[in-house]
Amino acid sequence: MGLFTKDIATFEDLFLHQLQDVYYAENQITKALPKMIDKATDASLKSGFQTHLTETQVQIRRLEQVFDLLGEQPKGATCPAIEGIIKEANEVASEIADKAVLDAALIASAQAVEHYEITRYGTLIAWSKQLGRDQIAAILQETLDEEYATDDKLTQMATSKTNAKAEVATSAE
Amino acid sequence: MGLFTKDIATFEDLFLHQLQDVYYAENQITKALPKMIDKATDASLKSGFQTHLTETQVQIRRLEQVFDLLGEQPKGATCPAIEGIIKEANEVASEIADKAVLDAALIASAQAVEHYEITRYGTLIAWSKQLGRDQIAAILQETLDEEYATDDKLTQMATSKTNAKAEVATSAE
Repeated sequence: MGLFTKDIATFEDLFLHQLQDVYYAENQITKALPKMIDKATDASLKSGFQTHLTETQVQIRRLEQVFDLLGEQPKGATCPAIEGIIKEANEVASEIADKAVLDAALIASAQAVEHYEITRYGTLIAWSKQLGRDQIAAILQETLDEEYATDDKLTQMATSKTNAKAEVATSAE
Repeated sequence: MGLFTKDIATFEDLFLHQLQDVYYAENQITKALPKMIDKATDASLKSGFQTHLTETQVQIRRLEQVFDLLGEQPKGATCPAIEGIIKEANEVASEIADKAVLDAALIASAQAVEHYEITRYGTLIAWSKQLGRDQIAAILQETLDEEYATDDKLTQMATSKTNAKAEVATSAE
């Protein structure tokens, strides 16, 4: 969240601000992913990022559906957390020349993004249930399931060939 | 990570930088938690944050043990991600007057911090195994288990009384 003035009076306000935070974050992610696709060298990592970009666009549409159900216009609230996570990802990537080491770093950065989304959607789902908005909870659950699946895929990549290559590259030096 | 100059050449370098990133993050968390303890109104949330502060200090000692096993001096690397997450937590908290709503927001912020730690420790453990550093992996696993347990406790709080109170407070308006 960020640029708003003392306007979180109720639990509903807090929910709306969290929604705006995630909306802003997802939009930032759609800008960050094409750069990660460019940088990734491993083919399955590249295509994994591509799939996640398509998924993220669907997730943004879902958030717009939730805004609609609340009778609100979709609006983002500047989110320093995702900005920090993406800034860090870019800084690290810019420091690495070796392709396999870069792939390992990109996976780690993508997992940091995924975990940010997992925690925010988890919170939104808990809150929407408490607010008696089960339809909203169900919509957001679809996205949360996708985020967990993406994180699992990234974990598999992190523990298998991409990093194994990095290790070999390192050992060969 | 952040303030370093083109020095990630190998997988070991990447591991060390990730370690410095988490070391910086944990130290920032020990500074942020006392403010969260002050702000929390629910007694079990307050004591939960207090417990996590004590745990974080132990986790910092574990990271120092890992630096030692690598023959390195403990050193932090500025981590824009944790700075963004903490900045966002402070911004949101400063916008809320209602105590129960504030507690709900504090829980969400703490879970964002936990998930950042979960992803970073998960990565460090995967990498340390690939580097054949099983002792380091085992040390970091102790911390990861604690982070998951803390996140679970926060989820329980988020879905039970603290937020239920926020809901009642909201409904009563």
